[in-house]
Amino acid sequence: MNRELFYSENLLPQDETLQLGSEESRHLTKVLRKKPGDFIFVTNGQGLEWKGEITGTDARKVSAKKIETVQHINERAPLHIAIAPPKSNDRMEWFLEKATEIGVSQITPIICQHSERKTLKMDRMKKILVGGLKQSGQYFLPQFNPLVSFDSFLKTNPTEKRMIAHCQAGDKIALFQIQNLNEGILILIGPEGDFSDQEIERAINQSFTAISLGSQRLRTETAGIVACSKVATLREISKNLV
Amino acid sequence: MNRELFYSENLLPQDETLQLGSEESRHLTKVLRKKPGDFIFVTNGQGLEWKGEITGTDARKVSAKKIETVQHINERAPLHIAIAPPKSNDRMEWFLEKATEIGVSQITPIICQHSERKTLKMDRMKKILVGGLKQSGQYFLPQFNPLVSFDSFLKTNPTEKRMIAHCQAGDKIALFQIQNLNEGILILIGPEGDFSDQEIERAINQSFTAISLGSQRLRTETAGIVACSKVATLREISKNLV
Repeated sequence: MNRELFYSENLLPQDETLQLGSEESRHLTKVLRKKPGDFIFVTNGQGLEWKGEITGTDARKVSAKKIETVQHINERAPLHIAIAPPKSNDRMEWFLEKATEIGVSQITPIICQHSERKTLKMDRMKKILVGGLKQSGQYFLPQFNPLVSFDSFLKTNPTEKRMIAHCQAGDKIALFQIQNLNEGILILIGPEGDFSDQEIERAINQSFTAISLGSQRLRTETAGIVACSKVATLREISKNLV
Repeated sequence: MNRELFYSENLLPQDETLQLGSEESRHLTKVLRKKPGDFIFVTNGQGLEWKGEITGTDARKVSAKKIETVQHINERAPLHIAIAPPKSNDRMEWFLEKATEIGVSQITPIICQHSERKTLKMDRMKKILVGGLKQSGQYFLPQFNPLVSFDSFLKTNPTEKRMIAHCQAGDKIALFQIQNLNEGILILIGPEGDFSDQEIERAINQSFTAISLGSQRLRTETAGIVACSKVATLREISKNLV
């Protein structure tokens, strides 16, 4: 599927017409050189695929009228990554883009004891997610939660199958040794200096399983992406075995 | 293992002393604040782990004397990624860094029919590989081959198990369905506009198996990283099953 996908957050299936924002309108007219009569495909990031025909091509607000819509069903099992944002903003953005492409359903940025970055530009981050969604032609935007401290996050008592990926010595198992990966999964990924011993202990006391993502020392953002990719691969295998 | 690893390309096990280059010397003295008497660990990217004691800390050339050396054996099965460099240099650098971290043994940049980027700054790219190696604490630097055309590459008649990952319709199998992934593997990854039909046909005529990396449309650099991560995961599983 090589067609371009657009994003409009508040689009509803019953909407008969649509106006795209200025950035997307510019891209559509200047880069893709779309003209009235051409089709466009738009999603709201909640499963909607809205197919329309372009009616007006003002470079600031392209308009379109509805032809048909499809409401997709999210068949993918939930994957939630709670990650300490790396010091470099670029690396966080890169994680968000790749995690969205590969497939993640929820991301929570967490502040840990060894975190150097304690703020995030949420708007900018949300934009990156939308970019990853459009680029990979998907219809479900990952949920991006506000930045929260490690302790507050544990207190939310997450309902998913819980794992913590850390680099310290100690009992750990490989991700592929975890049973029933098709249930909702939550994986914690630590900052550059890793989780503190206390944090690991606290997580384990709250039924998190300590896991390893391989024998190498991975950067934070690489660990996040490898976790997404491993889960996708293992789920793909188990689906095929059923 | 949180100790810092340094790189010196021409270092040999029998070298009794070592002088680090200006960039690494500066990092060692200014950032890590190492002093004479401190230990450093240096690799040549060919399996050598050289442990030394710092003898001089001129910010431009740190010197050290040998304490002991270990020659590591590369136990990882070869993984060769031949990839069309993305238009954006940044994205190529991300791929190189992450592929090195996750574990790749050889990278060949290829020029395809739909390639927009036809040159590469090889020195800069090599530096990124070294950075990834040091950061992930590994001792084997991936081999980075010169840029070559798709056709010339096929003519080299690669000896590995051959796969081509493309996004076109047609018969494809998932990577996990490939047998004996513990042999040397070669995976071709196409440019932003994908391989051309002719290129795919030519590869298949030369015993490449067409594979899929998942149901999403991945960017070139994401596909490259996902390929590395999938191979690592599948080899990890098969090793455990033996």
